[in-house]
Amino acid sequence: MRPSGRAPNELRPVSLERGVVKYAEGSCMVKFGDTRVLVTATLEERLPPWLKGQGRGWVTAEYGMLPRATHERVRREASAGKQSGRTVEIQRLIGRSLRTTVDLVALGERQITIDCDVIQADGGTRTASITGAWVALADCLQWMKARNMLKNDNVLRDNVAAISCGIYNGTPVLDLDYAEDSEAETDANFVMTGDGRLVEVQGTAERTPFSQEEFLQLMALAQNGIGRLVELQKIAMA
Amino acid sequence: MRPSGRAPNELRPVSLERGVVKYAEGSCMVKFGDTRVLVTATLEERLPPWLKGQGRGWVTAEYGMLPRATHERVRREASAGKQSGRTVEIQRLIGRSLRTTVDLVALGERQITIDCDVIQADGGTRTASITGAWVALADCLQWMKARNMLKNDNVLRDNVAAISCGIYNGTPVLDLDYAEDSEAETDANFVMTGDGRLVEVQGTAERTPFSQEEFLQLMALAQNGIGRLVELQKIAMA
Amino acid sequence: MRPSGRAPNELRPVSLERGVVKYAEGSCMVKFGDTRVLVTATLEERLPPWLKGQGRGWVTAEYGMLPRATHERVRREASAGKQSGRTVEIQRLIGRSLRTTVDLVALGERQITIDCDVIQADGGTRTASITGAWVALADCLQWMKARNMLKNDNVLRDNVAAISCGIYNGTPVLDLDYAEDSEAETDANFVMTGDGRLVEVQGTAERTPFSQEEFLQLMALAQNGIGRLVELQKIAMA
Amino acid sequence: MRPSGRAPNELRPVSLERGVVKYAEGSCMVKFGDTRVLVTATLEERLPPWLKGQGRGWVTAEYGMLPRATHERVRREASAGKQSGRTVEIQRLIGRSLRTTVDLVALGERQITIDCDVIQADGGTRTASITGAWVALADCLQWMKARNMLKNDNVLRDNVAAISCGIYNGTPVLDLDYAEDSEAETDANFVMTGDGRLVEVQGTAERTPFSQEEFLQLMALAQNGIGRLVELQKIAMA
Amino acid sequence: MRPSGRAPNELRPVSLERGVVKYAEGSCMVKFGDTRVLVTATLEERLPPWLKGQGRGWVTAEYGMLPRATHERVRREASAGKQSGRTVEIQRLIGRSLRTTVDLVALGERQITIDCDVIQADGGTRTASITGAWVALADCLQWMKARNMLKNDNVLRDNVAAISCGIYNGTPVLDLDYAEDSEAETDANFVMTGDGRLVEVQGTAERTPFSQEEFLQLMALAQNGIGRLVELQKIAMA
Amino acid sequence: MRPSGRAPNELRPVSLERGVVKYAEGSCMVKFGDTRVLVTATLEERLPPWLKGQGRGWVTAEYGMLPRATHERVRREASAGKQSGRTVEIQRLIGRSLRTTVDLVALGERQITIDCDVIQADGGTRTASITGAWVALADCLQWMKARNMLKNDNVLRDNVAAISCGIYNGTPVLDLDYAEDSEAETDANFVMTGDGRLVEVQGTAERTPFSQEEFLQLMALAQNGIGRLVELQKIAMA
Repeated sequence: MRPSGRAPNELRPVSLERGVVKYAEGSCMVKFGDTRVLVTATLEERLPPWLKGQGRGWVTAEYGMLPRATHERVRREASAGKQSGRTVEIQRLIGRSLRTTVDLVALGERQITIDCDVIQADGGTRTASITGAWVALADCLQWMKARNMLKNDNVLRDNVAAISCGIYNGTPVLDLDYAEDSEAETDANFVMTGDGRLVEVQGTAERTPFSQEEFLQLMALAQNGIGRLVELQKIAMA
Repeated sequence: MRPSGRAPNELRPVSLERGVVKYAEGSCMVKFGDTRVLVTATLEERLPPWLKGQGRGWVTAEYGMLPRATHERVRREASAGKQSGRTVEIQRLIGRSLRTTVDLVALGERQITIDCDVIQADGGTRTASITGAWVALADCLQWMKARNMLKNDNVLRDNVAAISCGIYNGTPVLDLDYAEDSEAETDANFVMTGDGRLVEVQGTAERTPFSQEEFLQLMALAQNGIGRLVELQKIAMA
Repeated sequence: MRPSGRAPNELRPVSLERGVVKYAEGSCMVKFGDTRVLVTATLEERLPPWLKGQGRGWVTAEYGMLPRATHERVRREASAGKQSGRTVEIQRLIGRSLRTTVDLVALGERQITIDCDVIQADGGTRTASITGAWVALADCLQWMKARNMLKNDNVLRDNVAAISCGIYNGTPVLDLDYAEDSEAETDANFVMTGDGRLVEVQGTAERTPFSQEEFLQLMALAQNGIGRLVELQKIAMA
Repeated sequence: MRPSGRAPNELRPVSLERGVVKYAEGSCMVKFGDTRVLVTATLEERLPPWLKGQGRGWVTAEYGMLPRATHERVRREASAGKQSGRTVEIQRLIGRSLRTTVDLVALGERQITIDCDVIQADGGTRTASITGAWVALADCLQWMKARNMLKNDNVLRDNVAAISCGIYNGTPVLDLDYAEDSEAETDANFVMTGDGRLVEVQGTAERTPFSQEEFLQLMALAQNGIGRLVELQKIAMA
Repeated sequence: MRPSGRAPNELRPVSLERGVVKYAEGSCMVKFGDTRVLVTATLEERLPPWLKGQGRGWVTAEYGMLPRATHERVRREASAGKQSGRTVEIQRLIGRSLRTTVDLVALGERQITIDCDVIQADGGTRTASITGAWVALADCLQWMKARNMLKNDNVLRDNVAAISCGIYNGTPVLDLDYAEDSEAETDANFVMTGDGRLVEVQGTAERTPFSQEEFLQLMALAQNGIGRLVELQKIAMA
Repeated sequence: MRPSGRAPNELRPVSLERGVVKYAEGSCMVKFGDTRVLVTATLEERLPPWLKGQGRGWVTAEYGMLPRATHERVRREASAGKQSGRTVEIQRLIGRSLRTTVDLVALGERQITIDCDVIQADGGTRTASITGAWVALADCLQWMKARNMLKNDNVLRDNVAAISCGIYNGTPVLDLDYAEDSEAETDANFVMTGDGRLVEVQGTAERTPFSQEEFLQLMALAQNGIGRLVELQKIAMA
């Protein structure tokens, strides 16, 4: 059985709280069990140089972890002088995931920067980040809408949320926590839209390769879990 | 009058909450009004190379700010590849301030690393950090004491807390918030122990030099304010 | 139709040539059409510090691109002073893919470093790299076997190869070249073993999310293509 | 007694020599005993980007130490690839100290960069640097005046000089040399103007906190010492 | 005798193959025995900032070595985060050598970047690089001429080629391979034009200083060898 | 004629002053006209890791320039975060030149680090550095000898000194100053021992290639000039 006593298809308690900081145009504190990520959305009336004058905006993301978000303290990346490969991978994933659901032309020539800072890490920080990032982004767009800054109401075309799945002790399970993640044979992250389509799929055999059937089982679990996350996003934005 | 309506010698509402994260040996969420800093204390059974084999421990500090802790988003230092001069100055100040009140020999050959991460910045982040860092450090030492890891009960010899003062519109005031800080003629940070002695003094004329009389007025305000912070630290640790 | 005139399930001409450099313990020049990657395997009797004394070896990979491997010259990463996020992602993927098929205990306390340097890039550099890296690794293990350095004959438990698939003009196609890759709606990389199981799956919606059915079609194409790559690997190693 | 045999309120022999290098618009070799700092002032008709078009100039400073200025060779910062926290703190202090006495509007849209390079270090390098930097700055402004480049005669509103004080063997003493500095209980640096007002105050308890009375004794010593330094600056500029 | 059995004034087999990669405007695979360098020439319609608007172009070079070009794997400079001193020296030498023979005004306001990447290193990589770089540069200029981009036919005023010489076991020899280079008492690199004049001379006593007579003997050998390299360049460009 | 009015074979006034700093084991202030370099020699009882346990010592060099040593201020390399290619070239040249005349086995397992810091630059900083570095090194070895730290009296086998030559307005001249250097057609640096043999030769055609005859003329000038520098070194060490 799972260390947490959860059923194989059971999410951890999820919380998505908007408006948690004072200055950002959008924000969300997302909790997947003991994993907590503070997400902010910053609107800036400027673009990266390579995007200027093309009549469309940009959404990008950065990811960081407080040094003691984890069991053992991890060296501060600002002090190490560079971001780790893992950090770079995750922030690129968050950015790509969000951009798929945004109408960048309707956004106009502006940039929204999503900052995901992990306050506490108990597995699933990247999926919690994406799920919370969508809320912070929607929060920011609502802030813009209230100021008549958007050309139309459909800048955000759909929800996007993410969950991890894995094979733990031979059983496919949803939403791995740290105890499961460190023991899982296989680990996959799914990013899907509100209508159930795929945005990103990343599956990794930690030790032994997995079959296509196993992968399909994980995908089915993910679809279900993401469906519930999307409902929670809608409640948060209501 | 002060933008916040406070009296010249009035602190902002201060809150010092222990045990706010799951993994760290010590922690404190400190709030000076809208300024909020998450402080963690990490105990490690290792020392920097230059300290090994000398029969004493070490306390060090790192400081960071979430990119959107401020009005305008600030570039993430991990992405910029280095810590700013301001960051380096502040983390050295925090480390020095704490070490003055710790008996490093009684601590034993271990290192405690204090991480101060600013979640929201409304002025006074370095003084809030020091004040909260003492609580996280004391929390960590209590954790060690509960495990019989300390040679005696006096590893922490005294409290240490910090406050800023400044001359705002010609009047000496206590605990500057951002609105005051950006307008103040003079800005001074005082770090003092529980018995009212000085650990660090940093006074800077932002625009025009200040007289020794003005400086003494600021020091008197600080002594009073720090007295109240020390009381709050004692309540938090009780 | 495809710009190259290939059928949807048709690979580009693939070539896997061993022993192409003088000093490396293993090597392979891999060509997927105009994409050419020089892969070397270096055996070293040392381990990264965190792996020492655990009775097992390590396989790691690095990836680079010559500045003018592409249509436009790309800045040399050695001169820029850091590896791009893309480079870091790819070299981590290559390393993970290879490690899944190696018995690290049977390898002994040694490290094999795989260097993949792209001489010419016409799409699919990461899948060509993985496919060629397996040959260079096998070449290196053969070199070790000839010197009686291996405990048993099963250090390499299976083949591993990789191919990209995508939806191009609405049609699922195998082994995208650059012209297709830059236009594809969806891009997925599959890494599979010789027995058809998955090692890594990475699917990305470049513009519009994709359905699970589309994803399954891509996976079927990949399985077929990887089967043929594995046959070519076996011929190269025969 | 002091190792050097000086009286508690006695400065080391101070020398401020102008015009010591060939190319710089202003320069000063400053000696506080065996501490020697070469200071140059460079005038440039350009500004940092964030200052452009605001109708005022800028004065900034950089600080360095020759690798063998000290008892033990210190690693060259250019070779280490970054400036230490100590260097950053000191150069920020020098810049702030000088700017307080300069009328940046009267300076016009230009930048003066002060370089302080320590040739030999026997304690007090930052106070010697500030004291000599003022002379190099004044020398540079005189060079500009001779070329009719200044709008008025009061660009430099006052002198600024600095001295360290500390409690050595229980006695407050002025102008610590290295032997004293490494043993002092408390160390404070004072930066004051010619009219005796404070520009910067930095007091640090090296080991035990100090009382406000002790701090006032140090400030009185400093005021006296800085008065004498200002006289020497006036002689150097006469 | 020489390890390779060559006569003292005998070059290794030299090969200069043009047009070896698909995208670059000019390219050359140069082989001096087992030393192989892939050289590409990239034409860009832009200039470094300090050269803009002066009515002339620029030729620059970068040099790299694949990590396993050598007997022992060398750390990848992109991963180390910086280019070694040796790399910097070599690429500056290549750039200077080429520029001496180019009419930069006739080139127009464009930059040609020469990338020399060592695929396999058996001594003489810098001299092979220069010799092949001239061919890649000439290949690029021919590409430009075919597109009527050049003002006149004399942009390239002369050939330039390079060879190493050294004193090996007391005998002056031409074109050192690795086995000789690591044992030679003296090592000199000569860069000369087609008309026999010197562009660069670099002579280094590896262990014992050398006499002027010895140096003249090396220069005579070099002149002869470079004469043959220039002939091979002419054949390659015919 | 030369801008300075010197004869073609005339050195600038040269001065070599020992013992100019307080802490270093060896030192020399070297002046070649207005070029001034402060050289220190630091003795350390440790070796770089790759040299340990081989029964011999090491001599290495670092080179730097104060930011305003030149007509225009040059960015401080410590602040730029890296040493320029020129700096790296020069410090490698200084180290190689000195090592040729030192018996590293007789030195014992120690390292001497030579720091050359250019206080003022008027051409020839690298040749002045080498010439002064030899004096600082000899000064350091004398310091060691006085403490009976050396196995024999012949650790330093010979003198080593350096001078530049060039073709200025068609005439070969000795010891270029900045005004000549920036106009010279050809620039060569010669490093020779006391017995007139060559240690390093670096000749560069700044604009047009030079003939072997011209090069021989420069070498003859250099030999003469270095002979005089060696005499001055001997006087300085007497």
